[in-house]
Amino acid sequence: MVDPIPNFYAVIPAGGVGSRLWPLSRADAPKFLHDLTGSGQTLLRDTWDRLEPFAGADRIAVVTGRAHRAAVERELPGIPDKNVFLESEPRDSAAAIGLAAAILVRREPDVIIGSFAADHVIRGARTFEFAVQQAVSVAREGYICTIGIQPTEPSVGFGYIKKGGELEIDGAPESAYVERFVEKPDLETAKEYFADRSYLWNAGMFIARADVLLGEIAENQPHLYAGLMDLAEVWDDHAARGPVVDRVWPSITKIAIDYAVAEPAAEKGRLAVIPGHFDWDDVGDFASLAKLNSHGRKNDLAILGPNARVLSDASSGIVVSQTKRVISLIGVQDIVVVDTEDALLVTTSENAQRVKGVVDALKLTGRSDVL
Amino acid sequence: MVDPIPNFYAVIPAGGVGSRLWPLSRADAPKFLHDLTGSGQTLLRDTWDRLEPFAGADRIAVVTGRAHRAAVERELPGIPDKNVFLESEPRDSAAAIGLAAAILVRREPDVIIGSFAADHVIRGARTFEFAVQQAVSVAREGYICTIGIQPTEPSVGFGYIKKGGELEIDGAPESAYVERFVEKPDLETAKEYFADRSYLWNAGMFIARADVLLGEIAENQPHLYAGLMDLAEVWDDHAARGPVVDRVWPSITKIAIDYAVAEPAAEKGRLAVIPGHFDWDDVGDFASLAKLNSHGRKNDLAILGPNARVLSDASSGIVVSQTKRVISLIGVQDIVVVDTEDALLVTTSENAQRVKGVVDALKLTGRSDVL
Repeated sequence: MVDPIPNFYAVIPAGGVGSRLWPLSRADAPKFLHDLTGSGQTLLRDTWDRLEPFAGADRIAVVTGRAHRAAVERELPGIPDKNVFLESEPRDSAAAIGLAAAILVRREPDVIIGSFAADHVIRGARTFEFAVQQAVSVAREGYICTIGIQPTEPSVGFGYIKKGGELEIDGAPESAYVERFVEKPDLETAKEYFADRSYLWNAGMFIARADVLLGEIAENQPHLYAGLMDLAEVWDDHAARGPVVDRVWPSITKIAIDYAVAEPAAEKGRLAVIPGHFDWDDVGDFASLAKLNSHGRKNDLAILGPNARVLSDASSGIVVSQTKRVISLIGVQDIVVVDTEDALLVTTSENAQRVKGVVDALKLTGRSDVL
Repeated sequence: MVDPIPNFYAVIPAGGVGSRLWPLSRADAPKFLHDLTGSGQTLLRDTWDRLEPFAGADRIAVVTGRAHRAAVERELPGIPDKNVFLESEPRDSAAAIGLAAAILVRREPDVIIGSFAADHVIRGARTFEFAVQQAVSVAREGYICTIGIQPTEPSVGFGYIKKGGELEIDGAPESAYVERFVEKPDLETAKEYFADRSYLWNAGMFIARADVLLGEIAENQPHLYAGLMDLAEVWDDHAARGPVVDRVWPSITKIAIDYAVAEPAAEKGRLAVIPGHFDWDDVGDFASLAKLNSHGRKNDLAILGPNARVLSDASSGIVVSQTKRVISLIGVQDIVVVDTEDALLVTTSENAQRVKGVVDALKLTGRSDVL
């Protein structure tokens, strides 16, 4: 057991559906409510278990949709009621994290929040915690700090953070300025970044004093800031909250925290980064899910699903089984088979990024019963 | 309307499960009870409809397993009770066709029977009938006559019949002796056969006087012959039939009609052949099912199933849907997806022949609930 980090509050935005993992991920069964690693528990619970040792069970907040309240409380029985922040509808990450910051800063003016997605996979708990501790030390100095993942391959699936000059901060030996953010590169560029070593994967982790983070929002997105202030003012007053939420939420600016906070802060030299040396994956599509579950073996067939009945003959890739049906694969390579009660997906790792297109097509053709 | 062919009786052996079409074909839903062409009716019914114009509805007999009696009667409401010949258990084609011959020859000593599998696909009804009419003319002369299909490609999936010298028979201008039967060849040999033009596909169609056919069985398989005589003697006496069937059937020799009748007859110059110029397929596996339903287009996705809800993005091959699930394919080529309530198969056309291996594996591993 370690002591909780002083002033620290972990925030878990549990929002995205994970469209590229359809038909496994659905509006009513988003990615964070699935076991994607064979751990026997959901990604959300894995995230909680990773944060709880150094945050403390009463200092973790979850921002999620109203529809997922019951599931979140079932997964996280230790979470205090007051730490489940319910969104009326999704308003992207700046609103989710900004809301948590605005509520928590009213409860504790000197709170430092760290935001960690509910649906990422991390391996290496101690290394992860070391990175967070460094990031908190940086945040105490008034910086907004992100944790960028040291790449293990030239990935084209992630955005990158270019590390700049070193910072001199006690307790944060690896801290550095962020020079700039880069969108997902092409393979050639990804190879250059990988060789360069000063480019880190953007894992969407932000650690900052809540007041600093809100100050950045105020500067860059004043309308969003005003809305968040209105919400936070009444949030902990249950009688007053409802009408304000109903009035304010629909007009809340929809913007990613990268654009609302991180990039502007980087330009002004207020964004720092700690390199994370742990294994990290956002499990963005079935190709990465297959890789994650293949245990590094090539030509392997990964099988996910507690009741999976799979018969494979010379096949590789991944099978996700949510039914009790017998699934038989013969001579199919790098295949992706996702078998659910009302929808079946068959594709290949190479085409995994195109799954979102199917979801869009299903929406357009009025078949959203399976979304 | 044409007049029925005099003395002719059509026999439909409806026996095989069609293991290489698992999980579509099952013990309780064999191949002949499926619509494999999108015609809207089963192959068995298609077979009946093809034969009925020149045989007559009261002169078609079906040989099938006891388990399929109800299904056969449902599919063929016009069939007289006395023409459904039920097998206690499968005993291969010589027993099935021999039983029909033995029963029918007692009813009509000069009957000519023609046997046509319940689960083949034929296109070109008039050409088919012309071949049958020629074969009946040949059969009247005391020959056993087969209809061999003029190959349209160098197939390695079928056995071949080598055509010999011409026969001089009225009403059968294309008739010839059969020189020999050849098992499924390799591709090199199949190409030679295809170029040669005197090799025809063995479609398992036999037309003969029932007494001639039985005489051939008596010569080559005396034990089988004796059993068939015992069965036929009591068959139309419902009170006497049961005990005899129970006693005799289990000891009936299990042998294909090719070995019991056709090959020995060919050696003795008693086997004739009529070339069939109609489209024919035994739909032996999902590759041929895909081809059959692709309407000759390459890179096409064939879809079978009355309730199929398929969304395809840059995919080709075949989807057989027996559920109401949405099936989504992305970037998979020559794929075979067979979606049933309790079993799913994913393979490729190239691997279609290996499906039988899966069925064997399922038997061995005690999962015959899905067979």
